Amino acid sequence: MTSVTCTAPVNIAVIKYWGKRDTQLILPTNDSLSVTLSQDILHSKTSISANKEYAHDRLWLNGKEEDITKNKRMHNCFRETRALRRRMEDEDSSLVPLSTYPLHVCSENNFPTAAGLASSASGLAALVFTLAKLFNLPNSMTDLSRIARQGSGSACRSLFGGFVAWEMGSEADGSDSRAVQIAPDTHWPELEALVCVVSDAKKGTSSTSGMQQTIESSPLMKERLQIVPGRMEAMKKAILNKDFQAFAELTMRDSNQFHSVCLDTFPPIFYLNDTSRGIIQLIHEYNAANGGVYKAAYTYDAGPNAVIYASKEDMKEIIQLIAHYFPPSEEKKSTYFTDPYNVLQSKDSLGARPAINEQFNTSVIPVYPPGSVSRLLHTKVHDGPRVLSENESLLNADGTPSRLA
Amino acid sequence: MTSVTCTAPVNIAVIKYWGKRDTQLILPTNDSLSVTLSQDILHSKTSISANKEYAHDRLWLNGKEEDITKNKRMHNCFRETRALRRRMEDEDSSLVPLSTYPLHVCSENNFPTAAGLASSASGLAALVFTLAKLFNLPNSMTDLSRIARQGSGSACRSLFGGFVAWEMGSEADGSDSRAVQIAPDTHWPELEALVCVVSDAKKGTSSTSGMQQTIESSPLMKERLQIVPGRMEAMKKAILNKDFQAFAELTMRDSNQFHSVCLDTFPPIFYLNDTSRGIIQLIHEYNAANGGVYKAAYTYDAGPNAVIYASKEDMKEIIQLIAHYFPPSEEKKSTYFTDPYNVLQSKDSLGARPAINEQFNTSVIPVYPPGSVSRLLHTKVHDGPRVLSENESLLNADGTPSRLA
Repeated sequence: MTSVTCTAPVNIAVIKYWGKRDTQLILPTNDSLSVTLSQDILHSKTSISANKEYAHDRLWLNGKEEDITKNKRMHNCFRETRALRRRMEDEDSSLVPLSTYPLHVCSENNFPTAAGLASSASGLAALVFTLAKLFNLPNSMTDLSRIARQGSGSACRSLFGGFVAWEMGSEADGSDSRAVQIAPDTHWPELEALVCVVSDAKKGTSSTSGMQQTIESSPLMKERLQIVPGRMEAMKKAILNKDFQAFAELTMRDSNQFHSVCLDTFPPIFYLNDTSRGIIQLIHEYNAANGGVYKAAYTYDAGPNAVIYASKEDMKEIIQLIAHYFPPSEEKKSTYFTDPYNVLQSKDSLGARPAINEQFNTSVIPVYPPGSVSRLLHTKVHDGPRVLSENESLLNADGTPSRLA
Repeated sequence: MTSVTCTAPVNIAVIKYWGKRDTQLILPTNDSLSVTLSQDILHSKTSISANKEYAHDRLWLNGKEEDITKNKRMHNCFRETRALRRRMEDEDSSLVPLSTYPLHVCSENNFPTAAGLASSASGLAALVFTLAKLFNLPNSMTDLSRIARQGSGSACRSLFGGFVAWEMGSEADGSDSRAVQIAPDTHWPELEALVCVVSDAKKGTSSTSGMQQTIESSPLMKERLQIVPGRMEAMKKAILNKDFQAFAELTMRDSNQFHSVCLDTFPPIFYLNDTSRGIIQLIHEYNAANGGVYKAAYTYDAGPNAVIYASKEDMKEIIQLIAHYFPPSEEKKSTYFTDPYNVLQSKDSLGARPAINEQFNTSVIPVYPPGSVSRLLHTKVHDGPRVLSENESLLNADGTPSRLA
């Protein structure tokens, strides 16, 4: 048996991907750009073992077996990586014919699905990266990103750490639609992120169907596609210059515009709720109180959760600000705040009123009902997929999952 | 003393006005089109008396005296109508020189400001119409609409009943920016409306400042301005053909697009809240359950209140649907529902579960907390401003208000 275990990170777009020009190959209607968040806090972990004795391919997701033949997108990733392996085996007959072996795949996220954090990007990136390691593929990450893209569009960006662009490309076969790293995480170590998990009763529209509804029915979407190229160039420049002012404004504007075309979709698609809107208003007031010099920037994907980007030095104040206006419920107090970087030292209380300057209008939003935000995760820009040691495998030596749901 | 009392109606746009190309003359960046709602339910009432013995112009709004010299927009309406009167007096010396008399103006709305219903359109329309009657001006309503427009943009549309277009015009002096009636209320008597007053803690951005922020900062607004002319033509055709399907879809799409450019404004402007969104989702499900044939159409102005247009025959079902999902609070139960047309007969309970067909997904939204919608006003398309009899005046014979706040 050959077995490999890897993790892949979550990425949060600052120029949003929304809309496909080819739904089979997952080719987007615009470039996008994301920031890779630390796997220390959020990741998908995947173990894959290849064994000629296995009866057939099997898949366990978060401890539950799934029918791999019904997961077309995952199947695309198997097919493409096996084809690359087969080519190697054809050229070198001394290689173990892994491309013909059945595979057992076991994958899980270290964050609860209930948290509403998108897991398909990190999940599919972990799958493709682990397959590539298992098969010992010599391909570059950008090569692999074309395969991950066919599993889940934004997964291609989770193959890199730091700041990552997904170039939409123009070829009909998708060969030039791939991810490239704009800058590694070490380029801008001051940049950190706060994930605010927002409680929401409703199940939103899936992004897969939502984005095609926008393409088909939003008259404003056409204009957005004209706007994105300029924003991509400006965003790359902002990142390379570590210009937080430009980065913050572009990030907020692009998040708003993505939700704007969702609202212009017919019937309209809503991802932001009253809590999301409250966080937006709070961040704008916080920046306004700083004389209009941005200290924080929000962004929202296809759900109500906020991700706030800010500089390390402002993060403590921002955490206290959010915790003041969006306090935890009594029963979830202990899991409310995850802070591996100890930005709040022991003497600090999470609930302390932040020392915002006197320009700050404290009545800009009300204090929300406890539990409106269920979790705060303090994280940072970090690296791409990691290979773990064998003793961290999710599979036993016999190819069964080490734990089931 | 000469005294006149009039009422003017509220109008609700189905193609939205948002953005001025001239903020002094109130010239819009696009045409708009509205439906005039019955004055039986919602109106502004204005009494004006002219008396040479008065010391100076005075103004009472909703029972409270205001400094008329500080209300520039109202002042515009005084100046313009007095100028028209003066021209008449110059040509006919037998006329009482009313243009030189100080005026006492008393105006009130029959709906609470707290209801969040825009009162400036009906208020300024009532002012201009009453001044025109007091001065016995021979001008057409379209002539007067140019003056009302300078008081409050959308006031120009409240000078007519039925279906009213505000043509943006192209002249720099605003001479061709005026309201015209597309069809009278008698043209489509089946069309009715349900005003859903949505509770909201927050004070939203004023429309005056909000629309200019959109013009200045929304990249998508440019595209909207290209879209509206086609929608205006389609909407006029829908109204003339009494084509509810086309009317409903255009109404909902244009409301959504207006809120979409608000969200694309920077910082973003939000008028819809979670209750507003719930009503939108409910109406879409209600239409979907009818095989996608529209039975109801929502629209939202610069606030969270919904106005639902529907045919008379579906109104009972729609009222019960809204009342089921957005029930009244215990303390406001008695004022929750206003139904001058008795669509719910005595045997019917407002709280009865509506007999929606089985295609309707009852879990599309949850039942909202009581009081999320505070009032339901059932109304219809109706006539333009009315002249009332002298005994309905808001002013005593001595020119003082008959009641103060």
